[in-house]
Amino acid sequence: MNIFDQIGDSVPVLGVDVGGTAIKAVLVDEAGTVLETRSRPTPGRGPSVVPEVLDVVGQLAEELPSDQVGVAVPGIVDERRGIGVFSENLGWRDVPFADLLSDRLGRPVAFTHDVRAGALAENQLGGGRGARTMLFIPIGTGIASALVTDGHVHDADGYAGELGHVDVGHGEPCLCGGTGCLEAVASAAAIARRYTTLTGREIRGAVEVARRVEAGEPEAVTVWEDAVEGLVTALAWTASVLAPEVVVVGGGLSGANRLLLEPLARGLSARLKFQREPRLVRATLGGLAGCRGAALAAITRHRVAQ
Amino acid sequence: MNIFDQIGDSVPVLGVDVGGTAIKAVLVDEAGTVLETRSRPTPGRGPSVVPEVLDVVGQLAEELPSDQVGVAVPGIVDERRGIGVFSENLGWRDVPFADLLSDRLGRPVAFTHDVRAGALAENQLGGGRGARTMLFIPIGTGIASALVTDGHVHDADGYAGELGHVDVGHGEPCLCGGTGCLEAVASAAAIARRYTTLTGREIRGAVEVARRVEAGEPEAVTVWEDAVEGLVTALAWTASVLAPEVVVVGGGLSGANRLLLEPLARGLSARLKFQREPRLVRATLGGLAGCRGAALAAITRHRVAQ
Repeated sequence: MNIFDQIGDSVPVLGVDVGGTAIKAVLVDEAGTVLETRSRPTPGRGPSVVPEVLDVVGQLAEELPSDQVGVAVPGIVDERRGIGVFSENLGWRDVPFADLLSDRLGRPVAFTHDVRAGALAENQLGGGRGARTMLFIPIGTGIASALVTDGHVHDADGYAGELGHVDVGHGEPCLCGGTGCLEAVASAAAIARRYTTLTGREIRGAVEVARRVEAGEPEAVTVWEDAVEGLVTALAWTASVLAPEVVVVGGGLSGANRLLLEPLARGLSARLKFQREPRLVRATLGGLAGCRGAALAAITRHRVAQ
Repeated sequence: MNIFDQIGDSVPVLGVDVGGTAIKAVLVDEAGTVLETRSRPTPGRGPSVVPEVLDVVGQLAEELPSDQVGVAVPGIVDERRGIGVFSENLGWRDVPFADLLSDRLGRPVAFTHDVRAGALAENQLGGGRGARTMLFIPIGTGIASALVTDGHVHDADGYAGELGHVDVGHGEPCLCGGTGCLEAVASAAAIARRYTTLTGREIRGAVEVARRVEAGEPEAVTVWEDAVEGLVTALAWTASVLAPEVVVVGGGLSGANRLLLEPLARGLSARLKFQREPRLVRATLGGLAGCRGAALAAITRHRVAQ
């Protein structure tokens, strides 16, 4: 069920996604159609990052007048308490964002998490539309995950979603202090780094590794296959324990499309025995998934409050 | 929140759990207190197993008059469609249990899955009471799992919960056709079998291996440590991706209590870096978790229908 079916005339809705480099905003109508978009650079991390973020969100809310507002931020986010618990990237801890945003904007604000907001948007409007159970896995600089069931995103007080830090057995150290983490072999950043380590050649990221895989370069193929193997292990685990109907692959690496999804599907088929095989699809909302999901969070909140 | 707080005077409630060897029934009052219990042998697998199971449930319902009835069965269970999709043990496929039970008992019956029912009961009444997010992991002949969030059990159309068949890297074959499955190293059956393989000594199950671990027998310690290592790997994954507040360990192996839970907690602490560490507790409802959960399913259904 699309949650837009249940709302009345409470539109337009503003969704804002506070990212590591940009703060993006989208204004949507009651059908979820994007009316307007905006983007501002994210203030650098530092003692004033929170007031600066609040100012940017305030400006966006003035530029794009709306009936309801949702805001997503990264890191560990406790949506129920309205707290940004921790962001490594932006350097904050225990920030009462829901209250600060409501004060700044003069009205209630739905406060959510960037990846979980993206998952909700992909489930309602994007690649996972119609799926009752869905896993969203954005693969970029890092790897995260979010499980959606019947329109609810599993949050576990903000701690869920670290599929990037499960041990897939490759034995290499991860920045988190762990060993064998999925993120250390299969993130876009890891693919680029491991290629350079293997060959000594500097490249412009995982996209170039993908191009070299298509050209048949053996070192690129090795690095790519390691990434696929790690992802297959992680997705096989997910299929066994959570059995999502659909896995939506997002983030920069999903641009590789068939080069990524086809070996993943083959690997999963070989690995799974009696478990339900998920359908693997590419995310369709791209960099707007987070702010579109923040708008959905505002709509859901409005609906619950009525 | 305890769901009993929300029901009125619609009691007593009958819960039935169709297990591999016994069909257990429990009659509970509005506070969840057990008023009566019954147990019957499960009919052997074969073409008549389904009508025979229906007869036993019918007899139990006559012996224990109730206002509402819930019935849990094993295998792959699609609760929403009311279908027992598959049971290896009892040998059925695509059985429309919800309809068959309602016809046999002459009233609506809440139809559910044994492990998910047990998880709901442990969350509402047992070891996981008060936890918003909980993983239930019964360890017996096999290993299963169920995730509970805000009183909802994740089912994925019946396919969720196969934590026993995730690859924890030990490299040994599993009966399912996979390799490295958790169940093949850490179930009670696997612990007993691996001890006998290692030593040539026949024993009476994992309980005896546990006793020998306590006595300091090196072979028993080796087998036990392999099981703990597998469980730590599986629980570290779960903590990263799902971040349950509490993990409730049930099934026969949970009888080992501290011998199991203490090394598990130490192993998890060492493995997890920034992830939330779950509290590990022992299940408290024992063999009645499934039928008490079936009774809860009936109450929830009644509440939703009102």
